[in-house]
Amino acid sequence: MCMKIDSSLKNLNDLFPADFTEEQKAQAKTLFLKNLSVEAHRFYGGKMQTVPKSGVYGFNWFNVWYTPGVSKISTSIREDEDASFSLSNRGNLVAIVSDSTRVLGDGDCTPPGGLGVMEGKAMLMKYLGGVDAVALCVDSKGQDGKNDPNKIIEFVKMAQHSFGAINLEDISQPNCFKVLDDLREVCDIPVWHDDAQGTACITLAGLINALKLAGKKLSEAKIVLLGSGASNTTVARLILADGGDPANIIVFDSKGSLHIDREDIKNDTRNYRKWEICEKTNPGKVLTMDEAMTGADVLIALSTPGPDTVKRSWIKSMAPKSIVFVCANPVPEIWPYAAKEEGAFIVATGRGDFPNQVNNSVCFPGILKGALLVRAKKITDGMAIRCAHSIAEFSEKRGITPESIVVNMNETEVFAVEAADVAQQAIKEGVARLNLSWDEAYNRARADIEASRSLAEDLKKLGHIKEPPMEMMEKALEQAIAAVKK
Amino acid sequence: MCMKIDSSLKNLNDLFPADFTEEQKAQAKTLFLKNLSVEAHRFYGGKMQTVPKSGVYGFNWFNVWYTPGVSKISTSIREDEDASFSLSNRGNLVAIVSDSTRVLGDGDCTPPGGLGVMEGKAMLMKYLGGVDAVALCVDSKGQDGKNDPNKIIEFVKMAQHSFGAINLEDISQPNCFKVLDDLREVCDIPVWHDDAQGTACITLAGLINALKLAGKKLSEAKIVLLGSGASNTTVARLILADGGDPANIIVFDSKGSLHIDREDIKNDTRNYRKWEICEKTNPGKVLTMDEAMTGADVLIALSTPGPDTVKRSWIKSMAPKSIVFVCANPVPEIWPYAAKEEGAFIVATGRGDFPNQVNNSVCFPGILKGALLVRAKKITDGMAIRCAHSIAEFSEKRGITPESIVVNMNETEVFAVEAADVAQQAIKEGVARLNLSWDEAYNRARADIEASRSLAEDLKKLGHIKEPPMEMMEKALEQAIAAVKK
Repeated sequence: MCMKIDSSLKNLNDLFPADFTEEQKAQAKTLFLKNLSVEAHRFYGGKMQTVPKSGVYGFNWFNVWYTPGVSKISTSIREDEDASFSLSNRGNLVAIVSDSTRVLGDGDCTPPGGLGVMEGKAMLMKYLGGVDAVALCVDSKGQDGKNDPNKIIEFVKMAQHSFGAINLEDISQPNCFKVLDDLREVCDIPVWHDDAQGTACITLAGLINALKLAGKKLSEAKIVLLGSGASNTTVARLILADGGDPANIIVFDSKGSLHIDREDIKNDTRNYRKWEICEKTNPGKVLTMDEAMTGADVLIALSTPGPDTVKRSWIKSMAPKSIVFVCANPVPEIWPYAAKEEGAFIVATGRGDFPNQVNNSVCFPGILKGALLVRAKKITDGMAIRCAHSIAEFSEKRGITPESIVVNMNETEVFAVEAADVAQQAIKEGVARLNLSWDEAYNRARADIEASRSLAEDLKKLGHIKEPPMEMMEKALEQAIAAVKK
Repeated sequence: MCMKIDSSLKNLNDLFPADFTEEQKAQAKTLFLKNLSVEAHRFYGGKMQTVPKSGVYGFNWFNVWYTPGVSKISTSIREDEDASFSLSNRGNLVAIVSDSTRVLGDGDCTPPGGLGVMEGKAMLMKYLGGVDAVALCVDSKGQDGKNDPNKIIEFVKMAQHSFGAINLEDISQPNCFKVLDDLREVCDIPVWHDDAQGTACITLAGLINALKLAGKKLSEAKIVLLGSGASNTTVARLILADGGDPANIIVFDSKGSLHIDREDIKNDTRNYRKWEICEKTNPGKVLTMDEAMTGADVLIALSTPGPDTVKRSWIKSMAPKSIVFVCANPVPEIWPYAAKEEGAFIVATGRGDFPNQVNNSVCFPGILKGALLVRAKKITDGMAIRCAHSIAEFSEKRGITPESIVVNMNETEVFAVEAADVAQQAIKEGVARLNLSWDEAYNRARADIEASRSLAEDLKKLGHIKEPPMEMMEKALEQAIAAVKK
């Protein structure tokens, strides 16, 4: 055995044998977290539960919460559907909808396979944003056995009346584009595609601050995007909307770079989001990553899990003070230490156990809270960009370094600020049902977030949540170390 | 002002002016509960929230609950879908699905209109059964604007992978029959129609004990059923399955009695459940309630809200020691005091503020808990009948009287017993995925129920749930009294 595990897991980087290489340590850490994850999920039977938020001060209160009193809730909502936001938990409730066809880095996991991730999102939503959420992993296969975007669209249209917002998640492309764009049109509540808009929002936030540290400007930066799934195509769209120069941007998919001659993309109308990028960017039709990366200021990789998806030579050929975002999950496209060895100035990943986590968990709890507070009908690109700047500014105020370009999700003060900024932007763009001042939105968000954090703490204190046995953690660690040693 | 309101609402019957008639008191009480319901729902913003059930002992735990550790939850479930019951909250989670087309006694309330009731069910589910639940009020209207049962069927088929069971609720007939019967065929988890099966289960439980008190036998009792919606047709089916004599049973719908000559029912194939009753019961083709009720031992009314749906003269003409179930919500078909005045021996209603509440809330938390504990694939009629006898036996052991034929939902010890009995029946009928002994099932159910009750108490104690202001209650009372005085 190595160092003793601390039950807070704060000494995660010191648990592995000293003679392990950096790569072995990284592998062992991932394995340890995976092993522990299975045992801990089984120990608790999942992560979330439903609990009353109103009081039962005697059994006659069920005559208020249920029949006969509740009858007036039904009729009040029938008379005014917007009353459903204040008379039920709808006003603070998000559905996390996925067809589990692209679950993090693990591809199609069958419908129930996404439950661990979606329930995790629900946990983060509550813990960080004071927002209630429910995981809905659905089977989107049609009669031909293929995943049909129209089925998800129909499902969400039917379900929307029970929620204040929809968070779409882990739907493979190209279906995700149609699902999001159609639902944003037809739904009367915000439909947020976290993989796309959330990742783009936090990536933009990180990029804004990384460029500040590197002394470069977004409008002048040469930017390579590796991967053109839902997330990176949206990253490109937000970068362009926020001032990036299309002539300096080159995007790659699995077949090569996107440019105006990509007939395969043009001919598949489901890929209209990718085609928009073909039309706008890479006017010089640079074809290879080798060429594109030479002298590039920024690499944003959201492609397939590494650690060898991004070559060391590509990093080496970048401009001075290069910025490298390698955000594939669960393993980044190149290990951060390797990118650093090749001269990268700033390296960011999607993981919380490395410096510079650029993960949408810093973003979605705040942006959804803001949208819910003013009962927004939509979350616009403008609201997402506002959220990115909100995070970047908040981070800059508390101080940024190449090892800390944006706040982590444990700097929880950021979420109420995001919520207030996003709420104001919603009002400004005319998509809010309620009018709140910045202070009102901030105070409500902050109170809700503090309440849910203190609730979670009290559940532990009072024994409603029990600490998992140390042996479980030790066993997960031993197995991880043994597997890497082999 | 009259008597001071107790915040437990235990003195509900003493709050009204002494010069009010019984009917005025009953009306004022309903109004008070409705007024208070709206204000209390607004005060809390609904009734349920989502809360972690697993521990965050430091932010690195999100690397376990979320990426990268959670990846192994996704792949584990992909390899074995049944693992989703133990590695996510699915194993203890019920979807309460309604299209809000027949919400208690209020008819079609538009899709969000059912949220108050469904969230109330979720509250009861947790408080009484230790079961987590989510309200899903869906829009089932097709392109022609009509409610389409196939839309609900498709919705539930898509959603089933995220839940351990489905509770269908408040779907108008005849759609409800097709929805339930189709879904019971195609789903791999229990689909429970609480209005039908739940109401039938608790009605059968009450009837069993009422007949004991009256010294009568089910096989000999002359039984009139008023109303032939989802609930009463299922009551008829369970009574017949449990030994009732079809020749002694007469069922009425809005057009008259059901019998073999009812061509209108025969010709509408959506009404196959009603047609089954036409074929089996009322061989003498008794046509009128006046005639059917003369000498009847039992009336079970589940029809339209009263108080004048059931005539005093009908009650008066019944056999000695007559049993009257008037269970429409929110107002029974005849006020209990009126039925008593006309000689009824036992009167039961669906309401908790009168004696003898015969309400499915005594049933569904236990039956669903039992089904979830053994991961049942279905809830059979046999399991529902077992549950009815479980409730009846439990009630008899603690003592039954004409004012208390079955336990109320505040006699919470019953639920773990139901759960264990139902789990055993599921195993016996071969629909369980897990094998548990009676004691194992009982102990788990009991522990979960106690945990959720003590959690709810602690939330109040620690101030996470605040007591509503007394002025809110007083105002609701004043308005109710003033409205009745007018």
